[in-house]
Amino acid sequence: MSKGTVVLAYSGGLDTSCILVWLKEQGYNVIAYLANIGQDEDFEAARKKAESLGAKKVFIEDLRSQFVEDFIWPAVQANAVYEDRYLLGTAVARPCIAHRQVEIARREGAQFVSHGATGKGNDQIRFELTCYALYPEVKIIAPWRIPEFYNRFRGRTDLMEYAQKHGIPVPVTPRAPWSMDANLMHISYESGILENPKSHAPADLYLMTKNPEDSPNEPDVLEIEFKNGVPVRVTNVKESASKDTPLDIFSYLNEIGGKHGVGRIDIVENRFIGMKSRGIYETPGGTVLLKAHLDIETFTMDKEVRRIKQGLSIRFSELVYNGFWDSPECDFVRHCIAKSQENVEGKVQLSVFKGQVYILGRESPKSLYNEELVSMDVQGNYDPCDASGFIRINAVRLREHHRLQGFSGTEK
Amino acid sequence: MSKGTVVLAYSGGLDTSCILVWLKEQGYNVIAYLANIGQDEDFEAARKKAESLGAKKVFIEDLRSQFVEDFIWPAVQANAVYEDRYLLGTAVARPCIAHRQVEIARREGAQFVSHGATGKGNDQIRFELTCYALYPEVKIIAPWRIPEFYNRFRGRTDLMEYAQKHGIPVPVTPRAPWSMDANLMHISYESGILENPKSHAPADLYLMTKNPEDSPNEPDVLEIEFKNGVPVRVTNVKESASKDTPLDIFSYLNEIGGKHGVGRIDIVENRFIGMKSRGIYETPGGTVLLKAHLDIETFTMDKEVRRIKQGLSIRFSELVYNGFWDSPECDFVRHCIAKSQENVEGKVQLSVFKGQVYILGRESPKSLYNEELVSMDVQGNYDPCDASGFIRINAVRLREHHRLQGFSGTEK
Amino acid sequence: MSKGTVVLAYSGGLDTSCILVWLKEQGYNVIAYLANIGQDEDFEAARKKAESLGAKKVFIEDLRSQFVEDFIWPAVQANAVYEDRYLLGTAVARPCIAHRQVEIARREGAQFVSHGATGKGNDQIRFELTCYALYPEVKIIAPWRIPEFYNRFRGRTDLMEYAQKHGIPVPVTPRAPWSMDANLMHISYESGILENPKSHAPADLYLMTKNPEDSPNEPDVLEIEFKNGVPVRVTNVKESASKDTPLDIFSYLNEIGGKHGVGRIDIVENRFIGMKSRGIYETPGGTVLLKAHLDIETFTMDKEVRRIKQGLSIRFSELVYNGFWDSPECDFVRHCIAKSQENVEGKVQLSVFKGQVYILGRESPKSLYNEELVSMDVQGNYDPCDASGFIRINAVRLREHHRLQGFSGTEK
Amino acid sequence: MSKGTVVLAYSGGLDTSCILVWLKEQGYNVIAYLANIGQDEDFEAARKKAESLGAKKVFIEDLRSQFVEDFIWPAVQANAVYEDRYLLGTAVARPCIAHRQVEIARREGAQFVSHGATGKGNDQIRFELTCYALYPEVKIIAPWRIPEFYNRFRGRTDLMEYAQKHGIPVPVTPRAPWSMDANLMHISYESGILENPKSHAPADLYLMTKNPEDSPNEPDVLEIEFKNGVPVRVTNVKESASKDTPLDIFSYLNEIGGKHGVGRIDIVENRFIGMKSRGIYETPGGTVLLKAHLDIETFTMDKEVRRIKQGLSIRFSELVYNGFWDSPECDFVRHCIAKSQENVEGKVQLSVFKGQVYILGRESPKSLYNEELVSMDVQGNYDPCDASGFIRINAVRLREHHRLQGFSGTEK
Repeated sequence: MSKGTVVLAYSGGLDTSCILVWLKEQGYNVIAYLANIGQDEDFEAARKKAESLGAKKVFIEDLRSQFVEDFIWPAVQANAVYEDRYLLGTAVARPCIAHRQVEIARREGAQFVSHGATGKGNDQIRFELTCYALYPEVKIIAPWRIPEFYNRFRGRTDLMEYAQKHGIPVPVTPRAPWSMDANLMHISYESGILENPKSHAPADLYLMTKNPEDSPNEPDVLEIEFKNGVPVRVTNVKESASKDTPLDIFSYLNEIGGKHGVGRIDIVENRFIGMKSRGIYETPGGTVLLKAHLDIETFTMDKEVRRIKQGLSIRFSELVYNGFWDSPECDFVRHCIAKSQENVEGKVQLSVFKGQVYILGRESPKSLYNEELVSMDVQGNYDPCDASGFIRINAVRLREHHRLQGFSGTEK
Repeated sequence: MSKGTVVLAYSGGLDTSCILVWLKEQGYNVIAYLANIGQDEDFEAARKKAESLGAKKVFIEDLRSQFVEDFIWPAVQANAVYEDRYLLGTAVARPCIAHRQVEIARREGAQFVSHGATGKGNDQIRFELTCYALYPEVKIIAPWRIPEFYNRFRGRTDLMEYAQKHGIPVPVTPRAPWSMDANLMHISYESGILENPKSHAPADLYLMTKNPEDSPNEPDVLEIEFKNGVPVRVTNVKESASKDTPLDIFSYLNEIGGKHGVGRIDIVENRFIGMKSRGIYETPGGTVLLKAHLDIETFTMDKEVRRIKQGLSIRFSELVYNGFWDSPECDFVRHCIAKSQENVEGKVQLSVFKGQVYILGRESPKSLYNEELVSMDVQGNYDPCDASGFIRINAVRLREHHRLQGFSGTEK
Repeated sequence: MSKGTVVLAYSGGLDTSCILVWLKEQGYNVIAYLANIGQDEDFEAARKKAESLGAKKVFIEDLRSQFVEDFIWPAVQANAVYEDRYLLGTAVARPCIAHRQVEIARREGAQFVSHGATGKGNDQIRFELTCYALYPEVKIIAPWRIPEFYNRFRGRTDLMEYAQKHGIPVPVTPRAPWSMDANLMHISYESGILENPKSHAPADLYLMTKNPEDSPNEPDVLEIEFKNGVPVRVTNVKESASKDTPLDIFSYLNEIGGKHGVGRIDIVENRFIGMKSRGIYETPGGTVLLKAHLDIETFTMDKEVRRIKQGLSIRFSELVYNGFWDSPECDFVRHCIAKSQENVEGKVQLSVFKGQVYILGRESPKSLYNEELVSMDVQGNYDPCDASGFIRINAVRLREHHRLQGFSGTEK
Repeated sequence: MSKGTVVLAYSGGLDTSCILVWLKEQGYNVIAYLANIGQDEDFEAARKKAESLGAKKVFIEDLRSQFVEDFIWPAVQANAVYEDRYLLGTAVARPCIAHRQVEIARREGAQFVSHGATGKGNDQIRFELTCYALYPEVKIIAPWRIPEFYNRFRGRTDLMEYAQKHGIPVPVTPRAPWSMDANLMHISYESGILENPKSHAPADLYLMTKNPEDSPNEPDVLEIEFKNGVPVRVTNVKESASKDTPLDIFSYLNEIGGKHGVGRIDIVENRFIGMKSRGIYETPGGTVLLKAHLDIETFTMDKEVRRIKQGLSIRFSELVYNGFWDSPECDFVRHCIAKSQENVEGKVQLSVFKGQVYILGRESPKSLYNEELVSMDVQGNYDPCDASGFIRINAVRLREHHRLQGFSGTEK
């Protein structure tokens, strides 16, 4: 008798293949679900593998467009960056995957969902919070947190042995001494030899970006056009090539960014569960977009709206990192940020070269930039005498403070 | 009969030379004060020029060490960045200059101070707020905001004419079609042809950084050691060269950063007075330090302290940009930020190459990074089952929200 | 020949009567505009007075409903409080008055607007920022900042003399030794004998609220019903009286609050221009609403949305206090706050007694309160074991910190 | 053979008496620890009871002074209020109790600590986070989260039965249909009949404050003197009574506040674990102090420092509520807040009457209030013309925005 049906987020790799079989062994009907969010994978091979391992059903879902439009675009609007550096490539992918997983679970009447995320990481939280938020009564099976599972599979050797015993195809190429996670937005690398925060990452680690030492000696110059704070067209100025659907735009920015080695970072970050971890990321297209969006945003957005939005963006980034994409507060913040983007529109020109993105110029029909007002050569509608009053009123408080403190520049 | 004594912030250039003479003409005794904050200037020539123009006294003050230690270092501790991009190179210099100007004014019994900043910019505010804060009863003469002055000198031609008439030496080389401001931390470029935000900056504009297209094809690898959040030593790993005083460290970082074209940005920013302006900046050493400091800080600082400190840093950056260095709130924020840096200590290795800074690794005796705790291979003092409870409790609220909203992933 | 037409915000009192005549004297056509925002005034007498003083036109505008719906209601949604205490009764009225003033000026082709606000206060800023925001090319005449005016009228005696000379009716009752400003939302008192921050306010100062020592010995019990964060009905539980239009609701809350002496504060606050001032306020209805709204909001709003909204509310309060009601950032914040109120709905019961408002209970169809979940007697859908994991994961960081610091409870 | 020694936070009541015996039953040596933080308790009777139940040792610790000085005073400096209303009386007590508990555990070589807090509340978290922070290797026994315990004791009847069987004295008076927690700072009431958020609290619930309907018809007038943001003396103006040690001051404020019915609130709040709960609190002395401190703080603190500190205070309140008193971020925030209080010094006069606190006046040697500057009658060192420039510069941005939006007051 079956314990019920479980929808397993299946990657096609060794871990989730073992989990698939193990879940069956535990008495579950297993539905394998593999989301295509742009990772490099032979999806048909994965389907066959899952079927051969006894999955009752296999769903291979192409979520790439949805990933770009519903998850990456809001991150672009927000200039989402966690702890000043990480562009959240994995964090925005997890809810995207989980949304469809919940849909399948509901549709197929599955009471359980499962995933192969570890018990020390952020991804378990991101998957599960979204599942609980969208399907509150769901039951989650996280094998790497179940003692019977993790005590049985204490290392890769145990998994390999289990695989061989259960007819699970075993990878033939030796595994890299680190783990990685790839999607359309980025590849992340962590664990293994990278756990020593002092060790330099090997030069051959990166798969999505060229080593800037080997990248072209000529920049590419792009023009990115924005509407409502998201790109609607990218043009390669020299080649006159142009893309205008979200997926094409983002893929093209990945191509150009990757070609020039853009978007590599090596950081120590703070996981939600309170430990520090070292991660290496490459986010080529996302990095180009972040720079371009920052430029057009400041060009078109009121200064004080920008300050408030900046605070909301930091909050948004923390929420997304911590797995709260599907929370009332993240809905609220996303709504507010989207509202702030209504006039974020125009074109940014930039060059991409040797790991860098250089903003070259920008124009917009909605710009608050007033060339005449700011000009040093013409007065515009501006009376410099006003500045005297402005400064003196701003100084009222400072002078009062001095009066009381009795300090002076000399004594200080 | 004299109207009194004025201490003029004198640059040696055409504008402040004319102002010097004009102030004399208006009946003031003029003390010329020229701060050496690392700009490229023939200070002795400037002294003679000021004397020849009738300055009663001339003070040439070498403030470079003070600039680094008292102004740049706090900005490094803060990761000070205005509007996500500008490293505040001019903004931190202004109070440094004004501090000494006030000291001289007090010591010399001058009731007036004067400067050549324009009436549309931020610098007038930065100068004057510091003056009012440290010397509340001071009177400020800002000629570019006095109608008799700015109506008389409507353009460069008027200044040239006035100069010739009053024996003020006139620059012989043609002027660049933009204005610039240089100090140890950065050079900024604005106005003139740069006022069109769409126009690309000319390739030959930059003076402090090499064009990355022409920079070396080999990276330099540096190790920067921090204590209390400020660098105490920089070592060129390959060359074994090493610097350990603040001024030497910062100058060396400028040299290496400049050699590799690091720290160029082209932005539109929001001035305090509410207009948008386009600025181009090169901040080689500051950019290297920002990246290195962000790395060692996240490595050693508690996650939640970091979040609070990040908010304070944004506030600090706004205050500095707006000219409030010498305000009670900036004192307060500086104190809090310095407090947060007590454990920010350790070494960061990084490479500098083609306009980029790549963090390679880090180590610290004060790190909160725990390799065993975070390891995927050993369990450390961590029970993965705890994460289940953590996630489920975090989901309590989300499930309640769902219950009320009745929304689902499918319908959304 | 006329210098043009000016729309004067006319109060009917001595100051603006003198200003009206003075503006005529200066060569302007004067349109007198008097907004009824609930102050106690004989509007028809004021009309006649203005006409008799030579106003070309007189507009008496009943803005009370608009004031409640468009200005007080957003403040209620925001729980708007400046510096933890002041409910912004004057600050929300100023843009309301100025909106109509600008409308009249545009409609009547007036290039000028004028007001009687002093040069040290906040109101000048609130009036003028709204005027500039809605009518950027307007010219503003603020007599109390014009030397010819304020040097001529150095005190009340000068105004009285001028009034007598120009046939301006002079108040016959002696003036209170302080100034006040009244509208539907509150009365503020400042200046004169109140300028000494140590002096107690006289007991007979308050006009809108009973002295709690003399107020009824029986509470009134009200039920306030909210939708979208604003009250839609108030019912006096004992008397079964009920009001359901915005103006009626607010007026009734004023009546009940005033009867029981609710909403008196005596504070020192920070004006926008950087000086501290002492103000005494009575805000009966607003205080009742603030307490009731806080209650229903926390009852129905997600905890984390509430935290973000609280930050926006503080920003909103500062913006409104400083006169930025009509700014892009205040529009943005108002929009975000309104969004947060979509589920703020339900009924609050409270009693009003001797200066206090006591919340008694609340109910809502949209509440996130789950009696079963929180109950100490039933388990609800909650597993207490989850809390162990939650706490232990929250402690990961704290234990790491301790490991490094080596501190202990004993030593601390 | 013993499983080890456990220090139990013992209250003397039925629950922790049963826990004491149950722990013994489970094989632990039990040390009973009872903290006197001002609750109404017969401590000697409790000692005897614990001894008779088999506690190996009993520690009754008078922490009242420490509670006031180290826990309540920082909350006063912060104006600590959770969710705009709750003064955190329980939240500040928990770390105080746990500090000593950890001390005893370390000193006595106990590896375990235990408490009687429930599995749905905040207190379990507050106790345990402090324990983990100060004694990371401690093991915590929380019986109400252990299935064998909570399944055995499903209600009060089970506890009573167990008590009778094990010779635990059973309370003879019938229990109130709610639970309460009392200390020097407040009493909280929750659960039972209060779980229905709509039901009004019974009039006889309150123990610490008089019903304002029955409180004196004459106010008491107090003068509270502050230094470094904490009270150093309180004087009853009419009676000339005065207190000047922390414990005496706070106790006296409780007495006067309680006598006049000050500090009652009935709220729904958000627990850390994400559920909403209804709580009723009475905090007489704390409420008086909050009002007085707000007053003296705004009187002496720079406006912009105040704004930054206000943000830190909200963060502090959340941290304390959530149990993070002993965290690096709370240490940091407490340090920053204490820094902000250096000039918060002076005297506040206030009256206490019928549930309200009315500020009457204040004075300070450190005040930034400048009577001459703010006066409407004298000009002080202030030029009203400056305000014109100030306003016009503030309007630059608003006018630009209007230019772009093309909106007007009329159309809006």
